[in-house]
Amino acid sequence: ITNNTNGMSPKITGELLRQLRHAMRNCKYFSEPIQAYIVPSGDAHQSEYIAPCDCRREFISGFNGSAGTAIITEQHAVMWTDGRYFLQASQQMDNNWTLMKMGLKETPSQEDWLISVLPENSRVGVDPWIIAADQWKTMSKALSSAGHSLVALQDNLIDVVWIDRPERPSKQLRTLGLEYTGISWHDKITALRAKMTERKITWFVATALDEIAWLFNLRGADIEYNPVFFAYSIVGMNSIRLFVDLKRLQIPAVKEHLQLDSPSKPELNIQTFPYESVYTELQAVCAALSPKDKVWICDKASCALTQVIPKSNRSPIPYTPLCLAKAVKNETEIQGMKVAHIKDAVALCELFAWLEKEIPKSTVTEISCAEKAEEFRSQQKDFIGLSFPTISGVGPNGAIIHYRPLPETNRTLTMNEVYLIDSGAQYIDGTTDVTRTMHFGTPSAFEKECFTYVLKGHIAVSAAIFPNGTKGHLLDSFARAALWESGLDYLHGTGHGVGCFLNVHEGPCGISYKTFADEPLEAGMIVSDEPGYYQEGSFGIRLENVVLVVAAKPKYNYRNRGSLTFEPLTLVPIQVKMMNTELLTQRERDWVNDYHRKCREVVGAELERQGRKQALDWLIRETQPIV
Amino acid sequence: ITNNTNGMSPKITGELLRQLRHAMRNCKYFSEPIQAYIVPSGDAHQSEYIAPCDCRREFISGFNGSAGTAIITEQHAVMWTDGRYFLQASQQMDNNWTLMKMGLKETPSQEDWLISVLPENSRVGVDPWIIAADQWKTMSKALSSAGHSLVALQDNLIDVVWIDRPERPSKQLRTLGLEYTGISWHDKITALRAKMTERKITWFVATALDEIAWLFNLRGADIEYNPVFFAYSIVGMNSIRLFVDLKRLQIPAVKEHLQLDSPSKPELNIQTFPYESVYTELQAVCAALSPKDKVWICDKASCALTQVIPKSNRSPIPYTPLCLAKAVKNETEIQGMKVAHIKDAVALCELFAWLEKEIPKSTVTEISCAEKAEEFRSQQKDFIGLSFPTISGVGPNGAIIHYRPLPETNRTLTMNEVYLIDSGAQYIDGTTDVTRTMHFGTPSAFEKECFTYVLKGHIAVSAAIFPNGTKGHLLDSFARAALWESGLDYLHGTGHGVGCFLNVHEGPCGISYKTFADEPLEAGMIVSDEPGYYQEGSFGIRLENVVLVVAAKPKYNYRNRGSLTFEPLTLVPIQVKMMNTELLTQRERDWVNDYHRKCREVVGAELERQGRKQALDWLIRETQPIV
Repeated sequence: ITNNTNGMSPKITGELLRQLRHAMRNCKYFSEPIQAYIVPSGDAHQSEYIAPCDCRREFISGFNGSAGTAIITEQHAVMWTDGRYFLQASQQMDNNWTLMKMGLKETPSQEDWLISVLPENSRVGVDPWIIAADQWKTMSKALSSAGHSLVALQDNLIDVVWIDRPERPSKQLRTLGLEYTGISWHDKITALRAKMTERKITWFVATALDEIAWLFNLRGADIEYNPVFFAYSIVGMNSIRLFVDLKRLQIPAVKEHLQLDSPSKPELNIQTFPYESVYTELQAVCAALSPKDKVWICDKASCALTQVIPKSNRSPIPYTPLCLAKAVKNETEIQGMKVAHIKDAVALCELFAWLEKEIPKSTVTEISCAEKAEEFRSQQKDFIGLSFPTISGVGPNGAIIHYRPLPETNRTLTMNEVYLIDSGAQYIDGTTDVTRTMHFGTPSAFEKECFTYVLKGHIAVSAAIFPNGTKGHLLDSFARAALWESGLDYLHGTGHGVGCFLNVHEGPCGISYKTFADEPLEAGMIVSDEPGYYQEGSFGIRLENVVLVVAAKPKYNYRNRGSLTFEPLTLVPIQVKMMNTELLTQRERDWVNDYHRKCREVVGAELERQGRKQALDWLIRETQPIV
Repeated sequence: ITNNTNGMSPKITGELLRQLRHAMRNCKYFSEPIQAYIVPSGDAHQSEYIAPCDCRREFISGFNGSAGTAIITEQHAVMWTDGRYFLQASQQMDNNWTLMKMGLKETPSQEDWLISVLPENSRVGVDPWIIAADQWKTMSKALSSAGHSLVALQDNLIDVVWIDRPERPSKQLRTLGLEYTGISWHDKITALRAKMTERKITWFVATALDEIAWLFNLRGADIEYNPVFFAYSIVGMNSIRLFVDLKRLQIPAVKEHLQLDSPSKPELNIQTFPYESVYTELQAVCAALSPKDKVWICDKASCALTQVIPKSNRSPIPYTPLCLAKAVKNETEIQGMKVAHIKDAVALCELFAWLEKEIPKSTVTEISCAEKAEEFRSQQKDFIGLSFPTISGVGPNGAIIHYRPLPETNRTLTMNEVYLIDSGAQYIDGTTDVTRTMHFGTPSAFEKECFTYVLKGHIAVSAAIFPNGTKGHLLDSFARAALWESGLDYLHGTGHGVGCFLNVHEGPCGISYKTFADEPLEAGMIVSDEPGYYQEGSFGIRLENVVLVVAAKPKYNYRNRGSLTFEPLTLVPIQVKMMNTELLTQRERDWVNDYHRKCREVVGAELERQGRKQALDWLIRETQPIV
């Protein structure tokens, strides 16, 4: 995200905080002053990536990491963030701010800290649109039990003091035909209603931007890296309401796609409303509810919208039916994802072939290499943009898990250090996400050893056969077993769901040691497989493929449950030079050779078609069988 | 448990139900009649095994499985139980009863069923002593939201109609000296108080029988298989209250052990009270609480006791500090467990050597074999009794996971069928639990194949190296990978915590695909490792060792976290005849040979010392290295 990063000099916040505290005391905005104000990270849709107009926590503090919560009282301005961002936050914030290092034993929770500093009977304010319903509940309960109250403020106080706050983006919408989506939005609505009927639900409130984009087969560009647009939707058995900046619907293609002028059936008539009117419309819907009516809303939706629904009618769910349906890709989407991954592999083969020539000249840096990768990707058909900011790290920078090269940290790629690049793109037919770790000179025995353990973990997941209905978190330890055996590990999950020309991170499945409420893996789901190893101050290793869940056919079929395994969609060679092949079993060597054969066949044909001779030579050399 | 099983003829319950319904309408017991009465399985301590006087659900229904909840209304008598017991429950209950098969899609939950049958504003009664606080909460919430109420009835209505209900057992207490416990009860109290101070807790209420036995270094015999006694304890910073049938404390050894007449320090003075007075004493304690005082109680403790503590003072915890401390065995306990397992192995070597001779005569049955195993165990020093009812299953009976041989199901051991025996004992120095699967003729290729996959899973867990702080559920898939690869699986967890001369099942750790809130594994914890495979109607395979968590020393030590692995305490040969050794890797073969070498050395020496020549010959033959 172009976070207006001002490098490492802190933002001067004294005057802003003075103004904010004035607003906290100002009864223009509410009946009584508030003693503390909470500024969470997110937007009203609980998006992982957010638009500039929603970067309120960054605006007030200067800290632009992806996770963090600010709390401002009359005396204090305090920031909670996690270990990834301790250094960055302390460099970006001036001394008006106190950093709370989450995960350390002595660090109090936000609730405990508030209770320790607040005068009796305090009012703590928060914008109910950007706090999720479940977080509101926890915070409100803790404050109440100590005699305070959490107060929903309709006016966002950061916006009050943010004079030059950017406009909410409203980029042009893109319609996706059946050749990309495989299912019309009509059929998606019908399937949603069938699920609602089955569970006796009368209304469904959609708040997640990727779910709304998926449902209507539309894409936007409101948030960088994520092809989504700001919208809400409320779906009933005979009604579809779409809340979106109405001028976006004036384009004939969009109008026609949504059949706004001539719905095919009355129950497929989309009523359109301004984005901002979702609150009052939901109130109107709820006013007409009978006591038995149930309304589905995600338990991570905003507190503001959730609380519109009377508690007795509210049926909160951890994952919406759209989230679940979206996760299982249909044949058209799978084909699109395959094509996107072949194009992406072409770009990376070009990149790596180019790097081999350029690195000896010492002219390539982490930043320029990331730019070159984007340039090669942009030459591919239907390229839209990157799917996330490229992680491009040389030597010690590779060991910083969420590293993004900045001018101050930028290192030159050399023959002496390990290079890690984690990158991906949005194409109209699919989304990619791939990590490769390479050495352009001679890796050390320790680097090779660690790389090989990571590879063994990657293969153990990728080649695993497991029963239908298995949750992804049960596979996480397979990725770690080889590292554990040597006393090593990595402190992140092993995989995440991947959207199809949608968000590169999506629920409800994943592969992690954290036993969050993931849904069982199903054929058609797409996840990443990305174990790693990070030697602080020295090098980082990660091997990431995007893999498709497919049916497996082992010898037996216990209780007719059926079995699943993974098929790699990513087809980029894994550097053999980094492997200590003696540490691999015969089955692992076979896996590497099979994988490389497939890379050569499939990507080689496309390189040939595109006339990319140099990259083809590189591919052929890098996919020689190992013995 | 001697459940007075009347074989497979149903209990006649018409008259009992008539009397119970009369009691439900009888305002002698409460202000207004109740429309439904819930009869859970447990006792007031939420014990897994219960005493005859607490078998109320069995008394009213005839169904004596270990899990089940009965609900009686004016019109209905309904039993919920799970798949293990569908057949048994339907055979043991007469046609006054309706069986609700839990786990089937069409089966309503207890709450939903009650709501569907109850007249408006109904009162549902339950004995608050035998429903856990967390279950009460769920049920009460569901009923309230439908306009009904859950009512705590001080008089248990089953006891009202149960004329010849057995007395609550009050067997003699046994004191355990430091040579068995390693830590005095004084030091356990001091450690508990240190934890309380650390978390600012003023009182702790102990309700689990094994925790109380462990805390005071006492054992009882009130519940079969579990060396516990009925008691409660309330511990404050200067006070220890023990609630127990007072006549048990008249024995001089017990008096002296607890220093009832001459406490060494005032804060180690144990005040004793009758078992029944815990409620009023806890009320007295709570009446004196200041608003800031916090009382620890397990969230699985009875609703009755939990609700005595004012909500603002209550601090419910999933595992008590006693549960956590008890799980980590000290050096003395570990030595005791090792000795107990050697004695247990001697008994099993005798059994298997004896079986080899006897089976060809066709005189050994599942029941007689279980009895013989008990006989051999009873010859060992400090034998107290079995640690659970022996599972002894031939051929298809072995495929019933919780099978216990009954006269009607009893099969003869032959040369043609697989035999599974899962058994264990209580010795004063430790508790055992071991499963072996054997064939006394020639196993089929499929039986060997399945056995070998189970063995691979057993070894994968037993030999796993993993970081300190890893939770057991992250190891579960290691036990299944080989089965999964061939499309097979088993539908139970892989391991449970094991007490030291205490309950054979204990928290807070285990190895399971169910992601319950298990605590991280630590050196000194003891769990079972017991994957299996069950071919319905044909055979069952399970291989179970009790294993000790020990420090491992791999090559590296990432972030100084340290590593752990397992050391088998069970030392009984695994039948080589059942293995397809070609399916084993070299490392797995090495593991088998190392394990068998240790069995031969350690158990062989003891067999020699005990002069058990025949068993020694068997051991030596069964521990020949495989190649």
